[in-house]
Amino acid sequence: MSDTPDSAVRTYTEQHRTAFLDDLAEWLRIPSVSAQPEHEGDVRRSAEWLSAKLKETGFPVTEVWETDGAPAVFAEWPSDDPSAPTVLVYGHHDVQPAAREDGWSTEPFEPVIRDGRMYGRGAADDKGQVFFHTLGVRAHLAATGRTAPAVHLKLIVEGEEESGSPHFRDLVERHADRLAADAVIVSDTGMWNETTPTVCTGMRGLAECEIEFHGPGQDIHSGSFGGAVPNPATEIARLVAALHDADGKVAVPGFYDGVAPLTDTERALYAELPFDEADWLHTARSRAASGEAGYSTLERIWARPTAEVNGIGGGYQGAGSKTIIPSSARAKISFRLVAGQDPDHIEKAVRAWAEARVPAGISHRITFLPATRPCLTPLDHPALRAVAGAMGRAFGQKVLFTREGGSGPAADLQDVLGAPVLFLGISVPSDGWHAPDEKVELDLLFKGVETAAHLWTDLAAALR
Amino acid sequence: MSDTPDSAVRTYTEQHRTAFLDDLAEWLRIPSVSAQPEHEGDVRRSAEWLSAKLKETGFPVTEVWETDGAPAVFAEWPSDDPSAPTVLVYGHHDVQPAAREDGWSTEPFEPVIRDGRMYGRGAADDKGQVFFHTLGVRAHLAATGRTAPAVHLKLIVEGEEESGSPHFRDLVERHADRLAADAVIVSDTGMWNETTPTVCTGMRGLAECEIEFHGPGQDIHSGSFGGAVPNPATEIARLVAALHDADGKVAVPGFYDGVAPLTDTERALYAELPFDEADWLHTARSRAASGEAGYSTLERIWARPTAEVNGIGGGYQGAGSKTIIPSSARAKISFRLVAGQDPDHIEKAVRAWAEARVPAGISHRITFLPATRPCLTPLDHPALRAVAGAMGRAFGQKVLFTREGGSGPAADLQDVLGAPVLFLGISVPSDGWHAPDEKVELDLLFKGVETAAHLWTDLAAALR
Repeated sequence: MSDTPDSAVRTYTEQHRTAFLDDLAEWLRIPSVSAQPEHEGDVRRSAEWLSAKLKETGFPVTEVWETDGAPAVFAEWPSDDPSAPTVLVYGHHDVQPAAREDGWSTEPFEPVIRDGRMYGRGAADDKGQVFFHTLGVRAHLAATGRTAPAVHLKLIVEGEEESGSPHFRDLVERHADRLAADAVIVSDTGMWNETTPTVCTGMRGLAECEIEFHGPGQDIHSGSFGGAVPNPATEIARLVAALHDADGKVAVPGFYDGVAPLTDTERALYAELPFDEADWLHTARSRAASGEAGYSTLERIWARPTAEVNGIGGGYQGAGSKTIIPSSARAKISFRLVAGQDPDHIEKAVRAWAEARVPAGISHRITFLPATRPCLTPLDHPALRAVAGAMGRAFGQKVLFTREGGSGPAADLQDVLGAPVLFLGISVPSDGWHAPDEKVELDLLFKGVETAAHLWTDLAAALR
Repeated sequence: MSDTPDSAVRTYTEQHRTAFLDDLAEWLRIPSVSAQPEHEGDVRRSAEWLSAKLKETGFPVTEVWETDGAPAVFAEWPSDDPSAPTVLVYGHHDVQPAAREDGWSTEPFEPVIRDGRMYGRGAADDKGQVFFHTLGVRAHLAATGRTAPAVHLKLIVEGEEESGSPHFRDLVERHADRLAADAVIVSDTGMWNETTPTVCTGMRGLAECEIEFHGPGQDIHSGSFGGAVPNPATEIARLVAALHDADGKVAVPGFYDGVAPLTDTERALYAELPFDEADWLHTARSRAASGEAGYSTLERIWARPTAEVNGIGGGYQGAGSKTIIPSSARAKISFRLVAGQDPDHIEKAVRAWAEARVPAGISHRITFLPATRPCLTPLDHPALRAVAGAMGRAFGQKVLFTREGGSGPAADLQDVLGAPVLFLGISVPSDGWHAPDEKVELDLLFKGVETAAHLWTDLAAALR
C-alpha cells in the first residue's frame, strides 16, 4: 500500500461503513435483556449471533461459554508473530430493559439512524463498543498487510453485565488459562464528551456492608422508658455521624492505608478537562458540591476513597407519630476504594471501628457483601500510552485522561489474570445508557474502529 | 355511727362488695373499643350504661356529652355545703382492642374472678378505676352521715383515650364552665406495686416532630457521584448525633429553659422506692440503663426532659445492597417535657437548632404535631397531701410519691381549667394494660373505694 497506515485505516473503514452498520443494527434487533427471564432465549441468540459474526470476521476460534446464568462469547485470533504479546478485550452483549412507552422516540429494538447517530438499546452500552473491534481488526490487517493481528487477540463478551455480572468472576476463574493475557482492554466505558477524547485509567473498588444495632427486645414506650435506655436509632446515627471527620475524610482508622496518592501529573491532566461544575451538579441533580477537603470534585469521585450511606432505617417511618424507642436500627454503608486499598483490610478496619463504638446495651451485627477491587493503570504504563496514542491517531488530537468513580467486573480480570486493565471507550455522556433513546455517535463509533485498528500495532510494540 | 370513719368506710365497702363487682363485670362486658369502628355502638352503649349507673349512685346530674368522635359522660353532685370546693374526677370508658386469640386465657369481654383478681379488658384501664368512685362516694356519705359529698363533685369520663383523645381538648374547652374545679383527680394511672402505695405527682409533656432532609432530585449513583455531593442520610444522622451532648443532655440551645429542678426532698422520696434496676431493665426489655449524667433511672424517666428518635429512614432498606446516594432522609424525634417547659418554646428552639445545621445543598422540612403540656403538682400542695393522706388511711401504711414518664390528656385539664391535677390510681404494673389477661387486684380495687371515700372529706378541708 502507498497510503500511510493512518489513511489506510480510514479508507478501509469508510469502505466498509454501510455493511458494518447493517450488521450492528441486526445485532441490536436481538433484545438481549439479561434482567428479564422472558428474554433468556434472546440473550442466547445474541451470543450465538456474535460468535458467528466473529467467525466471519476471521477469528479462528469462537466459542459460546456457558455459565450458571447467561452465556458469554469467547474468541481468539493468534498473531502471526509467535512472540507477540496477548491482549484480551472485554465487553458484554446483554442490554438494559427498554420499552417504547418508557419514553423512546422509536422502537428500542428497531435501530434507526438519525442525524449521524444510531438509536437503539445497546447502541452504546455495549454492543456498539464491542462491535467496533470487528471492523477494527479487519482494518488493522488491511492497513498493515498482515494475515493475523500484531498481538494474540482474545475477546470475552459476557451476557450478564446489566444484571451485576453474578457469574463473571467464576467464569474468569474457570477459564483463567485460556483468558491469560498481558493486558486487558475494556470497551464498556466512555470519553469526556464529543470533542474531548479521553482514556479512563481506572475504576474505584467497592466494599459494602450493613450494620445493625439491636436495643430493646421489642419497640418500647418512649414515655415510660425514654431517656433511660440506649436507643438503637440514635446510636446508629451517632455511628454514621462518626464516619467522616470535619475535613470530609473517612474517620475509620486504617482506611487510607496504602492509598495510592494522586500525582501532580494526574491532577494537572484532570485540570485540563473542560469541567463545568454547574453542568455537573445538574447531572448529579444536586445543589451543592461537597466532600473531602483539598480535592476537586473530579478528584473526589475518581481518585479518592469514600464512604456513603446508601440507606438508614429504624423505628417508625409511617405517617404521623409513634412514641417508641425502636428495637433496632441499621445502616447500609458502601465504601469506594482506590488503588492500593485492599477490601479485606477495609472490612477488618470498619469492623474494628464500628465494634469499638457499640455502646453498652446495644448488640450489633455487621455483614459485608462480596467486594470489588479497585483498578488503576499508572499514567506512564507503556500499554496505557499505547491506548492513548492509538486514540490520538484516530482522533487527530490530544487525548486526556479520566477515571471512573464506579466499580465494575474489570477489576476481576485484573485480579484473576494479573494483567493491567486499560479502558478504550468512545461513548459520551449524552448517549443515554440505561435511558430511553440510547444512541451512539457514528463519527465516534468509527473513531473507535480506527483506534482499534491502530491499537494492536502500538500495543505489540509497547508490551514487547 | 359509733365506728371511726375509717372502719365505717371499710364496713360499708365490704357490705357492697358483691353488688359492686357484679356491676363492674356488667360494664366490662360492653366492648367499648374506641379504635375499632365496628365497636362504635358499644362505646355509646358504655357511655349510656355509665350515665345510668351514676344516676343510680345518686349523682343528680348525669349527661352524655357528644364530641366529633365517641361520647363522654359528665356527672355532677353538688355538696350540701355551698362553700365547699369543687373537684373534678377524670377517667375514660373506652378500652384497648382485645381478642381471645391474642393470648387471653379467657374471653376478654367475659370478665371472670380468679385468685382475687378480676380479669377482663378494661378491668384496670380504666373502667375499674372509674368505677371505684361510685362505691367510694356512697361509702363517703354512709361513713360521714352526709346526704351529699363534702366537695362539689364532678366526673368527666371520656370515650377516646385509647385512640389518643383527639377531641378531648375541644370538649374541655367547650364545657370549661361546667368542668371548672379547684382540683382535678385523675384515676387512670397506677401505684408502684402491690405492697407500695404511691401517688403520682405529674406527667411529662410531649412535643413531636419530623425533620426531613432533601438532597439530590432523585436517588443517584454512589459510584458516579459518591464523595462529592451532600448525602441526606449522612446529614440526618449527623443532626441526630448532635441531639445530645456527651453527658446525655439534650444539646438544643434553650431546651432546658424554665425546667423545674428536681428537689432534694423529691429525690430522697424517690430513693425510698423499692427500685430494682435489673427488674426494671427486664420490663424495659433492655440490657443497660443509660441517659443524662447525674440522675438516677427513675429521675431520668420522671423528672428530666428527654429527646428520643422514634424513627429514622432514608435510602435503600431492602435486602442486599443498592449503591445510591438517597434523595432524602428523615427522622421522627419526640421530646418529653417537664414542668416549666413550654412546648411552643421547645418547637422554636428545635427549629432554630436544626435549621442552623442544614448543610449547603440540602433542603429541609420540619413538621411539629400538636403538643401535650407537662403537668406537676408540688409535693407540698395541700390537695396532694390530702390525696396521699386518704390513700394512707385506706392502705394503713406510708404513701410514697412517683411521677409518670408518659404524657396524657390530664395536662389539658390542668391547662384549660387552671386547676392542679392529682393522680389517684390503684393499678399495678402486673395488671397488663393493653395486653392479654388484663386484670385488677380486688384488694387494691377496694382500697381505691376506701381512698375515694376518705378523699372528699380530706380535700374539702385541704382546699378550703
